Parts: sequence; C-alpha cells; structure tokens
Amino acid sequence: MKFYGAAVSGNAYKVGILLELLQVPHETVLIDFSKREHKSPEFLQLNPRGEVPVIEDENVVLWDSGACLAYIARKHGGDKWLPADPAGLAAVMQWLSLAASEIQFGLQYARRGLMQKRWTAGTLEQGHAISRIALDAIDQRLQHNDWLALGRPTIADVACFPYVETAPESGLPLEPFPRIAEWLARCRALPRWPKR
Amino acid sequence: MKFYGAAVSGNAYKVGILLELLQVPHETVLIDFSKREHKSPEFLQLNPRGEVPVIEDENVVLWDSGACLAYIARKHGGDKWLPADPAGLAAVMQWLSLAASEIQFGLQYARRGLMQKRWTAGTLEQGHAISRIALDAIDQRLQHNDWLALGRPTIADVACFPYVETAPESGLPLEPFPRIAEWLARCRALPRWPKR
Repeated sequence: MKFYGAAVSGNAYKVGILLELLQVPHETVLIDFSKREHKSPEFLQLNPRGEVPVIEDENVVLWDSGACLAYIARKHGGDKWLPADPAGLAAVMQWLSLAASEIQFGLQYARRGLMQKRWTAGTLEQGHAISRIALDAIDQRLQHNDWLALGRPTIADVACFPYVETAPESGLPLEPFPRIAEWLARCRALPRWPKR
Repeated sequence: MKFYGAAVSGNAYKVGILLELLQVPHETVLIDFSKREHKSPEFLQLNPRGEVPVIEDENVVLWDSGACLAYIARKHGGDKWLPADPAGLAAVMQWLSLAASEIQFGLQYARRGLMQKRWTAGTLEQGHAISRIALDAIDQRLQHNDWLALGRPTIADVACFPYVETAPESGLPLEPFPRIAEWLARCRALPRWPKR
C-alpha cells in the first residue's frame, strides 16, 4: 500500500494511526505543501480535492481520510474497527461524518487560520462556534461511554482524535472538557498508537 | 422506523429519498424550525447537533444523514446501495464525506446564507470557493462514469443529490456543468425517486 501524507496534516495522521494500529505494511510518500505538490496536475488526478491523505493499493485509489480509514479497517481489521451490520456501521459513521464536518470546518479550519493567518471559511469566532458543536457532541457521548461508537475503540475514535487533540492550537483549551482529555489519553494508551 | 425530518432540509431529503427507493415503512415526524423544536432539550437528547434527520428504529437512534443512509441501506438494501467489501464501501464513503464537508459547508451554507441572510461559516465568496471543490470533484468523476461510486446508483448519489440539485439557489448555476445536470436527471429517473 502506498500512503500519500504530510507531517502537518491531521487528516493524514488519522490514516497513519490506523496503519500502525493494524500493522499494515506500507510505503509513505510525503507531499510537500510548500512546493504545492498537492495541487499538481498529477496529484489532482489521484485526488480532485488536492489534499492528503490518498492511498493506493493494488488497483484501488482512494481520497478522503474517512474513506481510507474504512478501506483499511475492513481489509485488515475484519469487523473489529468497522463492523458491517447496519447498526454497528452506522454508529461508527456518525463520528466519521462529525470528523468530516464540524471537526474539519470548525477545529481544523480554526487551527489552520491561527497558524497560517489565513481564513478561508469564516472568522475565528465562527470556527469556534462550529467547533463547540463537535466538542459538545463528543463530551455528551463520553458521559456514559469510554469510546465514541459501540463499546470499544473503532475508527470513530481514530477519525476524531487528531483535531480534537490539537483543539488548544485552534484556540480552544480542553480544560472545560475533562472527559475528552481522558478519552484522548485512553486512545494514546492503545498498543502502537503513534504520536503525531 | 420513525423519521424526524423537515421539508426545508436537504439533509432530511436524503433520507426521504432512500426510504422511498427501498420502500421502507416509516412514520415521519416533522420538526418545526420556526418553533426551534430542533434545539429543544428533548430533541438534543436524540441529536446533540440539534439537526434533522434523526431516525429511531427499535433500539437504534441515529443522527447524521450519512449514518442514517448507511443504516437504511445495509438493513433494507443488502449490498446493493452500500456494499461491505473494503473497496466498495470506501468508494461510497468518499462521496458521503464530500457530502458532509464541501457540499455541507459550501453549497448548503451558501444556500442558507442567501435564503436567510445569515452567514455563520464565512462569506458567500468563501462558500462558493468551497462549493466549487465539490462540483469539480463530481464533474471529474462523471467524465467517465454515470454514477458517483461503483458502476451503479448507491447512497453516494443519494447523499450528494439534494444540495447539488439546489446549487442555483446557492448562487451557482449548473449550466457550466452539463455532466452534473445529466447525472441529476439520471437520479430523478430512478423508480420512485421522490421530488423535494
């Protein structure tokens, strides 16, 4: 498997986490954002969005971190990290969707805005309002559960982890959310969970 | 199955489409946004995001349109609308993610902004830039394919349809995208595809 990533990207980090957890042999190709490699015609053929991660495996080419996680989980983890029964799959999907929506357009955009002084989807205040929807949803779930979906770690946790972990870099300290801090620690304590 | 929806919501419309396509018996509960029913304490217990759609089925409660589609597809459509093999599931997932990200925060937000004169995630121009990523990705896919994932209609098409159909209401006419207009027509021609 070929894994196109970039050290700065939390979306690529998600895929890197799962590849380590499941010990999937792979070759990493680092995309250099400073050289705009992610917007090159060759790369846009792999991913029309012009983003990492992308994976290539035999004849399969996939963009989008959630889709990459689903593929790796189903191929290398059986039902453990992403079950196929209707209720189990949908329970995980809720959090993949949150990761693609409020986490991406709240936490990720606010962090990038603060780091790069570049605001492409609203102000910091708007980004924080969207982020809080995600943090509140996660916090509410963790009131009575250790993991986001089902009763065990799944790709729901992997997908939400990176940009929740860096919430302070998005301007949102996690002190008001002790349950979320405990969940982050539980994720990090899983065997082979890689640091960013 | 109980389906919480609202006539104005394209996200609820996605679920309404699949329920009709698969002829799933259900009871529809209309949520009145003007009375802020979606932000009531009771509804927030069902969905911490305070949005439609939500479905309840036996002991399962699900928020998020993508998760609802996955549940209904797996329960009532076998592998037809959402397969469980790694490559097939991931191919559909790419478009569910696009629907949750660029389509939601581009096309949906621009449309809501224009209709309600309320801008909660950036300006119209920013919304259009995000929308174009989605429209270009769909257009590129349709160059050599009739459907977004695999070689047949799946929930990828259902998830992307509503806010692409209303792109003109988001301030983005579809005339520059004849392939997208043809794809919308192919969707509408499927047996039992309901009008908005």
